[in-house]
Amino acid sequence: MADDMRHRTGEVTLTVLTPDRQPLADQVITVAQQRHDFAFGNIGFDFVRLVGGPSDTAGVFGDAEHLGLDVLADAWLGLFNTATLPFYWGGYEPKRGETDSRRLTATARWLAERGVTVKGHPLVWHTVQPDWLLGLPLDEVEQLARARIRELAGGFAGLIDVWDAINETVIMPVFANGDNAITPLAWARGRIAMVRMAFEEARAANPSATLVLNDFDLSTAYECLIEGVLEAGIRIDAIGLQTHMHQGYRGEEYMQRTLDRFARYGLPLHMTETTLLSGHLMPPEITDLNDYQIPSWPSTPEGEQRQAEEIVRHYRSLVGHPAVQSINYWGITDDGAWLGAPVGLLRADGSRKPSYDALAGLIKGEWWLPPTEMRTAADGTVTVAGFHGDYTAGGVPFTIKPGRTSATVVL
Amino acid sequence: MADDMRHRTGEVTLTVLTPDRQPLADQVITVAQQRHDFAFGNIGFDFVRLVGGPSDTAGVFGDAEHLGLDVLADAWLGLFNTATLPFYWGGYEPKRGETDSRRLTATARWLAERGVTVKGHPLVWHTVQPDWLLGLPLDEVEQLARARIRELAGGFAGLIDVWDAINETVIMPVFANGDNAITPLAWARGRIAMVRMAFEEARAANPSATLVLNDFDLSTAYECLIEGVLEAGIRIDAIGLQTHMHQGYRGEEYMQRTLDRFARYGLPLHMTETTLLSGHLMPPEITDLNDYQIPSWPSTPEGEQRQAEEIVRHYRSLVGHPAVQSINYWGITDDGAWLGAPVGLLRADGSRKPSYDALAGLIKGEWWLPPTEMRTAADGTVTVAGFHGDYTAGGVPFTIKPGRTSATVVL
Repeated sequence: MADDMRHRTGEVTLTVLTPDRQPLADQVITVAQQRHDFAFGNIGFDFVRLVGGPSDTAGVFGDAEHLGLDVLADAWLGLFNTATLPFYWGGYEPKRGETDSRRLTATARWLAERGVTVKGHPLVWHTVQPDWLLGLPLDEVEQLARARIRELAGGFAGLIDVWDAINETVIMPVFANGDNAITPLAWARGRIAMVRMAFEEARAANPSATLVLNDFDLSTAYECLIEGVLEAGIRIDAIGLQTHMHQGYRGEEYMQRTLDRFARYGLPLHMTETTLLSGHLMPPEITDLNDYQIPSWPSTPEGEQRQAEEIVRHYRSLVGHPAVQSINYWGITDDGAWLGAPVGLLRADGSRKPSYDALAGLIKGEWWLPPTEMRTAADGTVTVAGFHGDYTAGGVPFTIKPGRTSATVVL
Repeated sequence: MADDMRHRTGEVTLTVLTPDRQPLADQVITVAQQRHDFAFGNIGFDFVRLVGGPSDTAGVFGDAEHLGLDVLADAWLGLFNTATLPFYWGGYEPKRGETDSRRLTATARWLAERGVTVKGHPLVWHTVQPDWLLGLPLDEVEQLARARIRELAGGFAGLIDVWDAINETVIMPVFANGDNAITPLAWARGRIAMVRMAFEEARAANPSATLVLNDFDLSTAYECLIEGVLEAGIRIDAIGLQTHMHQGYRGEEYMQRTLDRFARYGLPLHMTETTLLSGHLMPPEITDLNDYQIPSWPSTPEGEQRQAEEIVRHYRSLVGHPAVQSINYWGITDDGAWLGAPVGLLRADGSRKPSYDALAGLIKGEWWLPPTEMRTAADGTVTVAGFHGDYTAGGVPFTIKPGRTSATVVL
């Protein structure tokens, strides 16, 4: 993999003017990056209880039990700019008509106030489903699903404008690892009808939302689904690719080939669910990751070294591919992590693993312009190069983005 | 598996009249089945040389070198009513503009004269491709592919009215096991565009053809492709499912589940390519069957017993499923068989394996009405039950087919 980041970076010739609009000649000013355009994300599931308060019902995975808001927020906000919040139907509406809207709204606001883009996951899926849906007639399930999509996409518009509109459609109609009401609906209606339902309802309720088609199946099956969806004229905004690597890092070559395959549809790629382990790997014969249940899955020193090395390789290869627009890591801490796996960047006690520092070395190191003193020329210009994103010069904002080569700031 | 054949059988009350249209009362007549409606097929590749004469160029697989026409024809015609003939582009047109039309026409005629339905395989595929296509611009490859489809579907209309319109579309754009000109076209145009090209050109050239979408990939990928193709409004007449079982018989439960999955699209299922081995199995780690090349692959006594048992189980389960309309076995003899595998119902020396007799015990035994003496009632009626198909009573034809409960024959 060539570590070529030309598609991620730009160079802006900044004209710095004094308040009376004269060039600030031959002076030192501080230039600093404030935010990446690239979405470096993680789940924000842990914040739902810490910010929104406890729930009466059992939480879904990703609910740290032992760590405080200060430790988590400090680590989380130090690296990430995009948070995925959980809207699993079974967790969000465990009793018909009683939703977790209050806590999710509070959490989304708390994140947004800290400059974090909030994403919802997922509007339609067949897993983590409420029991009360079981046994209802298909037409009623469809009407309830449509109402839920509209309520979420519309009700959270402005606060949450990115959604996994539908999750794991490839397996949806033939899913056999747990009773749910969505699988029979998908069997009867077909996959494309399910995708159309999710995207059209969400689009109507929030026309400016970014809607993602998301799947773990990266085989030709997903290509076939995407080609059918595009052929059917359904507008999707991004192709979501999960890469839960509980069975081992898949390597740059595999990722490059996979990204090229999905990039050929001309849509942005969102790496929606990314994990790398800092403990022993799940055996390769496990097909549904949920089937691997063990009492304890420790993070180990060797595992932590491996995770740190692999996370750097993985992020480099993904950010290096022009089609990738976001990477969402799936877990900040091992405390309460999905499947109990040591996927976090923090250990269960809140201490930082090598992977945290390694990733910080990229996102807030190699790929980041820290506060830097620069000297303007006689005409008040100074040239700033960096990753696409938001910057300040002397505290005044400007941006580096594709196609822009000059900007002016007035102090 | 319930061995329920109600969907395959009927009962007709036959009124037998004398030439002067009087009831033939209380007389013995001979009733006999002549043909199955169900397509029991096999490849007829071996007949191309034996009937059509030798070729200047190397044959494709399925060209018996040591057996004579008499031995092969006797065994073949004793069991099968539908023949698949090879139209691989690379074999059919090894030099641009020089086709094997003469031999294929002669072979198809010879088969048709013997009451055999002839099927062509395949109009579009990425394997067994001519070298002269390599390196041509995509647009030219597409134009040549379209011309070929029209020429074959139109040129053979009336003689060949069943085609595998496109073969193995799921893997087509990402096929990596051999340079060819079709894979880049499929990558650029997309799978659905390839399917549309195959079906629309063939349909235009032969409006009464039965056009089959055929694949070896029976995973969710194929479901996704089918759903996309149907959503795109492309009319397909049958879903083709290959079952080359070089790595072992997959069992009734797998087949039932698979047939149910593909039957839900409401289209007939054609079991286009069926093989069971009478020798050792191919190791399970082989992904592309073509990669397993060994100098000798013998048929063994134990293997032949296993093959005979499995072919009965397999055919029972397939014929037992209402959506299945045809089964094409893939090889009559081990002589010249695909991959050199012992898939035949005849050994390489032409002697019959137990599988031949076992299959005959179904197709021309348990599922067949041999010439049978029956006595008419006083009103000239006699009731005949049997598999849907063509029959004679006293040499006069009648049919048993779905929905028909009575018929009249005039002697």
